[in-house]
Amino acid sequence: MPNTETTLTYPQYTSWMRELADLRYANAVLQWDQETYMPEAGAERRSGQIATLSELAHRFFTDPQKAKELNQLLADNSLDEKQRKNVSLTAEDVSQQAKLPGDFVRTMSETVSKSFQAWMDARKANNFAVFAPLLGKLIDLKKKEADYLGWQAHPYNALLNQYEKGCTVSMLDATFAALRAPLSALLAKIAARQQVSESIVKQSFPEETQWQFSMDLLEKMGFDFRAGRQDKSTHPFTTNFSAHDVRITTRIDPNDLSNMTYSTIHELGHALYEQGLPDAEYGLPLGEFTSLGIHESQSRLWENNVGRSLSWCSSFFPLIAHYFPEQCAGANAETFYRAVNRVQPSFIRTEADELTYHFHVMIRYELEKTLMEGSLPVNDIPAYWHAAYKKYLGIEVPDDKTGCLQDVHWSHGSFGYFPTYSLGSLYAAQFFGAAEIAIPGLQKQLSAGNFGQLLNWLRQEIHIHGRFFTSEELCKRISGDTLNINWFMQYVKEKYRFIYSLEEEAIPS
Amino acid sequence: MPNTETTLTYPQYTSWMRELADLRYANAVLQWDQETYMPEAGAERRSGQIATLSELAHRFFTDPQKAKELNQLLADNSLDEKQRKNVSLTAEDVSQQAKLPGDFVRTMSETVSKSFQAWMDARKANNFAVFAPLLGKLIDLKKKEADYLGWQAHPYNALLNQYEKGCTVSMLDATFAALRAPLSALLAKIAARQQVSESIVKQSFPEETQWQFSMDLLEKMGFDFRAGRQDKSTHPFTTNFSAHDVRITTRIDPNDLSNMTYSTIHELGHALYEQGLPDAEYGLPLGEFTSLGIHESQSRLWENNVGRSLSWCSSFFPLIAHYFPEQCAGANAETFYRAVNRVQPSFIRTEADELTYHFHVMIRYELEKTLMEGSLPVNDIPAYWHAAYKKYLGIEVPDDKTGCLQDVHWSHGSFGYFPTYSLGSLYAAQFFGAAEIAIPGLQKQLSAGNFGQLLNWLRQEIHIHGRFFTSEELCKRISGDTLNINWFMQYVKEKYRFIYSLEEEAIPS
Repeated sequence: MPNTETTLTYPQYTSWMRELADLRYANAVLQWDQETYMPEAGAERRSGQIATLSELAHRFFTDPQKAKELNQLLADNSLDEKQRKNVSLTAEDVSQQAKLPGDFVRTMSETVSKSFQAWMDARKANNFAVFAPLLGKLIDLKKKEADYLGWQAHPYNALLNQYEKGCTVSMLDATFAALRAPLSALLAKIAARQQVSESIVKQSFPEETQWQFSMDLLEKMGFDFRAGRQDKSTHPFTTNFSAHDVRITTRIDPNDLSNMTYSTIHELGHALYEQGLPDAEYGLPLGEFTSLGIHESQSRLWENNVGRSLSWCSSFFPLIAHYFPEQCAGANAETFYRAVNRVQPSFIRTEADELTYHFHVMIRYELEKTLMEGSLPVNDIPAYWHAAYKKYLGIEVPDDKTGCLQDVHWSHGSFGYFPTYSLGSLYAAQFFGAAEIAIPGLQKQLSAGNFGQLLNWLRQEIHIHGRFFTSEELCKRISGDTLNINWFMQYVKEKYRFIYSLEEEAIPS
Repeated sequence: MPNTETTLTYPQYTSWMRELADLRYANAVLQWDQETYMPEAGAERRSGQIATLSELAHRFFTDPQKAKELNQLLADNSLDEKQRKNVSLTAEDVSQQAKLPGDFVRTMSETVSKSFQAWMDARKANNFAVFAPLLGKLIDLKKKEADYLGWQAHPYNALLNQYEKGCTVSMLDATFAALRAPLSALLAKIAARQQVSESIVKQSFPEETQWQFSMDLLEKMGFDFRAGRQDKSTHPFTTNFSAHDVRITTRIDPNDLSNMTYSTIHELGHALYEQGLPDAEYGLPLGEFTSLGIHESQSRLWENNVGRSLSWCSSFFPLIAHYFPEQCAGANAETFYRAVNRVQPSFIRTEADELTYHFHVMIRYELEKTLMEGSLPVNDIPAYWHAAYKKYLGIEVPDDKTGCLQDVHWSHGSFGYFPTYSLGSLYAAQFFGAAEIAIPGLQKQLSAGNFGQLLNWLRQEIHIHGRFFTSEELCKRISGDTLNINWFMQYVKEKYRFIYSLEEEAIPS
């Protein structure tokens, strides 16, 4: 037989990958538009457009000929370390993606587009039943997906692994078990103290002024408006179409300034990561974020470790008072600091404090695990949700909108995503702890509204590496330790000891 | 030899076409975003994304196997008349497109994206030299394109034919020659009369109020906001991603209400056509507009024959006075009517009156013809422009921004597009004339702000047919006549006789 093998050069590999990225990012533009500006009647055709692009990208990416060529290219000794990493990560990705048939990808994409509309309709009607049929279909598809991808121990592992490489049910069970006791103990101590007042942020704040403040805030905290923009959407999100075009969205509650403020800083954290990825690696693994846990570590580091610090409040309170002089009359930075750190079991995950937040995630994690096992009918989700919030947070969920309809994730087909929020929070504490060691006077810089050195440190330690290091590798390089909940527990204990005047010895270790 | 021919069924044909449409419309979303919301630094990667999608769509569309299959499908006797029309138009399109190599399509697309940025930069700098190098490249590519497509008599014919099937240099030379004398004579008569005042529209009109008025206006004139939206851009345009998602843009001059008003109504006219195309034919020729001349006939019919009529002004003046009470104090509908129909040679095509407009188009037509002949160096365009405006309109173009940098078309790679503006204006007069015969009391309806019957007539006569009829076929069906400048001349003579108190016998016929 003649040798008919074609050989793929590295430049050919990059142009192939870049065309694929063009398709993927084009699809991201369609999705961004769908959630920001698209008129209502455009939804149906848009579903088809997104599905077509998804299917094409999948078909090109999983071309069996390319899989072979990638393995040949890996054997090429002239590749440098980064090039080899790009090719080997791509070969892995291709082999994962190739497990999903094209028809399945199209069906999933179309179901997701319809689900997003159904979820929006269900929220409007405040009725889970409107969303249930499509959610049931999505869950069935997700089980199928897990089977296609293959799994050991638990089908949910196949989905977890898509967002956080190597993440498993047993690892998360252990992490949440370790968090539960000290968190519950700390919550109990706090509940026994006098509650802090959040009245300063719960006033009337005109929408337009909040918007202006959010834009100013983004600029001052390092968002590059030449390479990004902010818009409004029902559920805030970050997306990007290159490192030079990063879009975030926010939502505004006219009776709560903290809602928009921390949602904006949260998305800013995501956006700074995307803006910091190397544009020279556009379309290649080293030009992409390494995991959702690390992505979330960036959003939560900026939202909480920076944004909810006394330093940040000291620096930004004058600006807040500039935009809202009447609402801030007689208050100071500490009033604001206490208000935005109030600990209180509540219904909405994205508005939860840093402690109860993990219970919101745990509930979703356990629910998804159960759904993937098939032991819970879709229609029982509201009752499950109700019971779980009662059990973990001691509160009675009043309706679906405040309960199981609050998150967009399922309607996006994202199952296994929620746990990355807790991981992100834990990584954030660990990274920020390392930053405080690496950057002398960091808190002083933050108090002065100077975020450049912290951003630069994150750029050098995390952003510029793209997918070169896994979450665990990054974590070890930065902190000398694997993921360890002690960094987080240490951080929250110190914070709430001050805010709630807890006695040192009284805090469980 | 075994028969290895595959046969294409009509349903397979439609799903192939719909996937192609998904790709094309996805690309239109990318372009819409580029001109409305995209941050500056996103431009470079966006060019690549648009180029990739263009190239893919081209590659799929010109698959030689498909061309063969389409011809086989045409021989299928079970197709109904509409199905046969779809397939035969597609076969024609494929054979035209297949003449352009994939590399060429990609190069064109990339050059266009860069040209758009260069044009924007050149406008900012008010300096044609900034745009000249890319424009030169575009012209070379357009000559190549004409050669690929093939042409007889004149290379420009190949480009004209892309926008208006069957349109040729000899046909346009004749049309413009026929228009020139009576138009010039009418202009001379008007110039001899006392000028009308446009002071009512040339005042300070706050941008935000103008925006609100434009949105109100669109709603009242029949724009379906469930299936479309309006945004702002440098150069107003209409695009669509299905008949259920039609986007228009406008621009606002804070010192001129007529600029935004008539730009908005113009784009509304385009949008009503797109919203009226049959969604059931999505992605197929019968779901598309028939020609740019007909598209423009819709925008100009609404802008001029409706929007600049005394009936429209009577109906809308109260609303204008509602939004701008101070500016309208002491004025009435006739003041407004006269102001927006002032005839005056001017620099900007999109702001020109209905008479001088054709000279703006003639100048561009002759310039493009010359450029395609290769007899004018790119750098001489500003001087050519200057001389032409002096010759035809008697005015001295002061700078590039007011001169040869005013139109976006070349930067979009659109050469041969301008003539469709004059054709559109002529078709509009002919169609509107037919509508006045078909709809008793039409002017009364317009005076009452009732546009439903006119819109419905346009829907039935033009919109729902998609590409089933050519421009000429439509024109004959509607007016019983081929394109004939007399309808237009009759319309403008009547209009300006009233506005400029011209004596009947003094108007040249």
